[in-house]
Amino acid sequence: MNMDDLLKLLGETYENRLPFNRVLGLRVGALSETAVTVHFDMRADLVGNFVHGFLHGGVISTALDAAGGIVATAGVLHQATGKDPEEAMARIARIGTIDLRVDYLRPGKGKRFTVTGGPMRAGRKVAVVRTELKNESDVLIAVGTGTYIVG
Amino acid sequence: MNMDDLLKLLGETYENRLPFNRVLGLRVGALSETAVTVHFDMRADLVGNFVHGFLHGGVISTALDAAGGIVATAGVLHQATGKDPEEAMARIARIGTIDLRVDYLRPGKGKRFTVTGGPMRAGRKVAVVRTELKNESDVLIAVGTGTYIVG
Amino acid sequence: MNMDDLLKLLGETYENRLPFNRVLGLRVGALSETAVTVHFDMRADLVGNFVHGFLHGGVISTALDAAGGIVATAGVLHQATGKDPEEAMARIARIGTIDLRVDYLRPGKGKRFTVTGGPMRAGRKVAVVRTELKNESDVLIAVGTGTYIVG
Amino acid sequence: MNMDDLLKLLGETYENRLPFNRVLGLRVGALSETAVTVHFDMRADLVGNFVHGFLHGGVISTALDAAGGIVATAGVLHQATGKDPEEAMARIARIGTIDLRVDYLRPGKGKRFTVTGGPMRAGRKVAVVRTELKNESDVLIAVGTGTYIVG
Repeated sequence: MNMDDLLKLLGETYENRLPFNRVLGLRVGALSETAVTVHFDMRADLVGNFVHGFLHGGVISTALDAAGGIVATAGVLHQATGKDPEEAMARIARIGTIDLRVDYLRPGKGKRFTVTGGPMRAGRKVAVVRTELKNESDVLIAVGTGTYIVG
Repeated sequence: MNMDDLLKLLGETYENRLPFNRVLGLRVGALSETAVTVHFDMRADLVGNFVHGFLHGGVISTALDAAGGIVATAGVLHQATGKDPEEAMARIARIGTIDLRVDYLRPGKGKRFTVTGGPMRAGRKVAVVRTELKNESDVLIAVGTGTYIVG
Repeated sequence: MNMDDLLKLLGETYENRLPFNRVLGLRVGALSETAVTVHFDMRADLVGNFVHGFLHGGVISTALDAAGGIVATAGVLHQATGKDPEEAMARIARIGTIDLRVDYLRPGKGKRFTVTGGPMRAGRKVAVVRTELKNESDVLIAVGTGTYIVG
Repeated sequence: MNMDDLLKLLGETYENRLPFNRVLGLRVGALSETAVTVHFDMRADLVGNFVHGFLHGGVISTALDAAGGIVATAGVLHQATGKDPEEAMARIARIGTIDLRVDYLRPGKGKRFTVTGGPMRAGRKVAVVRTELKNESDVLIAVGTGTYIVG
């Protein structure tokens, strides 16, 4: 498989094979070795604040963590180019979130939400990924900083 | 209403009126002015790692954030004892998560999960709450530190 | 005093009146209502890793927290424009760091270091500030996210 | 060397050979494979808030990060018992802070400060350490959560 096929497979895996990502309706958009875009729509069951109808903070952290995991995995694929594919698969099987900080900057208000993410650090053992959640009016709602084990 | 009634109402509100808490099936257990216990069960749609069947990190952060919000709100009720109830209600309406750090210490493996939480700081404007998620074998899976606006 | 004078006074205060900022030799450079630049030089006593001569992580977090505090304070001055100066002074006296996350991305290697910072959130009660530390070759060494009480 | 000698060497290294730890006057007290105590005294140059004479937040984060690094290193020594000492030394040479969160809970007021720390996670690649800073009256001033690379 070439890189484009691998990235396509990665996107489809996060979209279809992780049950809780499906609960949120996450869809993986543009995806490269160093950047990802994830989309999802407001729905009544994603609400936390029932008075105002804002997104639950847990929906936000779930979407940021999912986007961060995709970026961390894409980074491993990038490092593995031209190397033993089995070693890359073994590394990918071990990927996990070590810690995540979410800054909730503004209310989760909107109809369609977009998460973008990119690497701040892409090491052999640890990756650090920054993610952002915006609504359809490009209002920045939350920022995530996640540390992932990748080796 | 006395404090017991207020705490009962608080627990019921988090359990029944926040749609995304219902998606996870969160149930509020013991609740005092300074501590909360929240329960939920493993279900197929709460999985993140489909190979091993572990909880999605987003489920974990959602449960920790919900427990933290309950502790922050209980703290406001505690401070409001004997004071103007309208002011307390106005403060509660403004409560929100400012930031949350989650440390994912071990895989989210288990059948029944319990989150406990208590205040590290309970100020007039800001509360900081520490939360822990364990499974039915008392294995510590994740720790949360959340900062909440409460004034 | 006009805004330029207030900002100048703010910079001088952080540079000269906070003893531990002087221990590091922090110098406040460009400073506006929404951005700050802080400089300092490598010195033998700022080292943590004595084998390689890298900056101590505590020097990095000190510089990021100082820059964050300046941005938080400048935000209060900005909000206070045309309002009661005494109220602004009372708010400034209460400013303090609630929490700080530092991501140490690369070794603290260099001769001259520059911290830049700007607001992610500038509320009436809470400000969230993002800061970055680079060396003289523009290598990004660390990123900070700080939450400050400002009300 | 047996474990007691190794831990003694570890404590002396952090106390005497890391220049910026000496700037703060950090002294390593009790140290085991899973816990550390670090002491330091208030001094005029460690102040951040010059009005009230409280510790600078950077002093606090420096002390928490130093204690966290000691715990991470002690954990590697613990894992290396009975194994190749050269491999342990190679791992120790690579130890570094990945990220650190500090919660500043109360003003840094006091004459003598004590930091305690212990592992939340002690893996082959990553350690997570929780630390606490108290003053001589046992008032909890700050809590740290640090992630360290250890493999």
